[in-house]
Amino acid sequence: MTIPNHITPDTDRFLADLDALHQIGPFETGNHRPTFSPEDMESRHWLVRQMEEVGLVAEIDGIGNVFGRHPGPGPKLLAGSHIETQNEAGWLDGALGVVAALNLARAGLPVDVVAFADEEGHYGSFIGSRSFTGLLEEEEIDRLSNRYHGKPLRDALAEAGLAGKPRLRLEEGRYKGFLEMHIEQGTTLENAGQGIGVVTGIVAIWQYRIIFEGMQDHAGGTTMAERRDAGLAAVRFLSWIDAEFPKHCDARTVWTCGRIALSPGAPSIIPGRAEVLFQFRDISVPTLERLDEVLRRGVVESNRRERCTATLEVMSQSRPAPCDATLQDCLAGAAEALLPGGWQRMPSGAGHDAQYLARVIPSAMLFVPSIGGISHHWREDTKREDLAMGLRVLAEGARRFLAG
Amino acid sequence: MTIPNHITPDTDRFLADLDALHQIGPFETGNHRPTFSPEDMESRHWLVRQMEEVGLVAEIDGIGNVFGRHPGPGPKLLAGSHIETQNEAGWLDGALGVVAALNLARAGLPVDVVAFADEEGHYGSFIGSRSFTGLLEEEEIDRLSNRYHGKPLRDALAEAGLAGKPRLRLEEGRYKGFLEMHIEQGTTLENAGQGIGVVTGIVAIWQYRIIFEGMQDHAGGTTMAERRDAGLAAVRFLSWIDAEFPKHCDARTVWTCGRIALSPGAPSIIPGRAEVLFQFRDISVPTLERLDEVLRRGVVESNRRERCTATLEVMSQSRPAPCDATLQDCLAGAAEALLPGGWQRMPSGAGHDAQYLARVIPSAMLFVPSIGGISHHWREDTKREDLAMGLRVLAEGARRFLAG
Repeated sequence: MTIPNHITPDTDRFLADLDALHQIGPFETGNHRPTFSPEDMESRHWLVRQMEEVGLVAEIDGIGNVFGRHPGPGPKLLAGSHIETQNEAGWLDGALGVVAALNLARAGLPVDVVAFADEEGHYGSFIGSRSFTGLLEEEEIDRLSNRYHGKPLRDALAEAGLAGKPRLRLEEGRYKGFLEMHIEQGTTLENAGQGIGVVTGIVAIWQYRIIFEGMQDHAGGTTMAERRDAGLAAVRFLSWIDAEFPKHCDARTVWTCGRIALSPGAPSIIPGRAEVLFQFRDISVPTLERLDEVLRRGVVESNRRERCTATLEVMSQSRPAPCDATLQDCLAGAAEALLPGGWQRMPSGAGHDAQYLARVIPSAMLFVPSIGGISHHWREDTKREDLAMGLRVLAEGARRFLAG
Repeated sequence: MTIPNHITPDTDRFLADLDALHQIGPFETGNHRPTFSPEDMESRHWLVRQMEEVGLVAEIDGIGNVFGRHPGPGPKLLAGSHIETQNEAGWLDGALGVVAALNLARAGLPVDVVAFADEEGHYGSFIGSRSFTGLLEEEEIDRLSNRYHGKPLRDALAEAGLAGKPRLRLEEGRYKGFLEMHIEQGTTLENAGQGIGVVTGIVAIWQYRIIFEGMQDHAGGTTMAERRDAGLAAVRFLSWIDAEFPKHCDARTVWTCGRIALSPGAPSIIPGRAEVLFQFRDISVPTLERLDEVLRRGVVESNRRERCTATLEVMSQSRPAPCDATLQDCLAGAAEALLPGGWQRMPSGAGHDAQYLARVIPSAMLFVPSIGGISHHWREDTKREDLAMGLRVLAEGARRFLAG
């Protein structure tokens, strides 16, 4: 298949497609389409029809992935994202990447379009993209259930009419690469007044639970000297992290304590136990390892200083997924051509299906701004001109990469 | 009534009484007698019989107070505590003070014995002692319900056969003072190897809720510079308190953060809101006021420094209840006579019925050690010889005060 010298995607149709999908499972100004709910299945069947209209050979596979196969010869791009939403969430998120991919195909590019199932993790962790890349075993499917209402994944697949269907696997040698368009889920682009982010990679998340064990006591009868206050040990530890991490981080490293739980949590009882959830994210493994060392030193310091015992438990340490350099350069060239000076390179702080595709084929992502940085909330939104520019840059970047 | 020159309470009988009461509503090695439960009412009727055996005129009043009136002439002491327990709690706590009072009467002292209802707060806050001292209105009784199972206090009183009974009030001029014996609920005496604590007063508790409001955001997409992390603001505030309070406290001041709640409390979401429960306790009003100022300065500092808003809300500010100097001296003299060097003066960090009695008549408290400082737990215990010595000092102190 010959790659054209110039490409003009139909941005009006692209926006109309997004609006049509927005009508399925509406919630406030966003959408509620939890994985394998009736609304989610309606959206998957809607997508099949759109794929067929574009001339793709469409099907829904045994894990719920919606796959539209381009019938022409020659090397292809794979493009897409996911179509289900978080509960009561925004209208763009994964839908944007799927509809953008559809409109690359509509513009005449040799693109297979995919909507990976359950990126949002109602049942598991990236089960659609992991299935497609060979990282999901049948045993895990047997074991998974819905995190909100407990329904086994097998039952949900059966109710969706997908039981017994084969799971599609990535076809070796078919793709030059994978592209995923997404909203930024932050305010970096908005604050910079820019319209495009060329993603350098998807950060790894290293996640920990730190337990402080002291002695539960009466808050009146126990002198300060006698106390073994696990809550205070946790506060001092987090304060130490707050002082130390900036000395060892990189420019885009982020770290977060999302939960501090003191037991028993009563106003007049000295906490006997504190549980802290802590994570940091970066794209560089040496930086991640350096921060892991700092964290472990903090635990040692705490155990030296406090009359409570601190224990560190690793919950997960994912791998960073660097984006392909050539694909990045094609997207960057397209961005500079269409929006000179109005773009930047940036990491993705959030996880995406692209992180699993990046393990097997050259992959890249394109960000558009999100108003106020809002995501995973029904108020999530992006200006229509930013959406349109995103598609134009994505299409031009894809064209350059396919032609290259 | 003539006060004897010498008094020898029957410590064996005292311990036997405690053992008998321990049989009512047993739980592990402790007791479960929540206010107005069948077990609690059984213990109140048991107490009525003991009072009558000692020669007191006994009754249970309309709020559940068990009152045994000494029939003789002349000035009296009032003594007692409460008889219900916390859930699945210890066998001593309030029971000790009630049975000690009973055995003062048994030893021939002119003592009225009282078990105030619901000191443990299953329905309200010190409703028995507040009723007796004129600080409980009928409207509050109408409003109260059980904090665990929600039963209205009126229904519980009716089921206990107490509806419509009059509530007894302290008779003006009848008492020279009030005495309450209790376990320490801390390890100060145990650590000092001492057997008696002469309580200088019951500390006031000043209790606050501090709310930090920031911006809930994605822990991956939001750079450190963009964040308004309410959890981090709370940690920094508590760390500031940890550094500042020791500069302004007194020797026995205590302060406690019993709860830190981050919202939404998920590992990958920057907390948009943090709620901190904080309290401090001291016996001196100037010290309490100084710490209140420090706390308010901390909130101002936080609002100056952080991109989150801190708001301070006063939940309660009780009054300290200093113990009567003469009563203290009588107890101290008795302690030095019976256990030379084996006692100390100390504040009570926990609240007791004595704090309401102290508002209207000279009041004092005597502490005995608690093994490991345990209280409000079924493992609570005190050595039998310490219990016996407690009664002997209490009786000799009471004798000296009545004779004085």
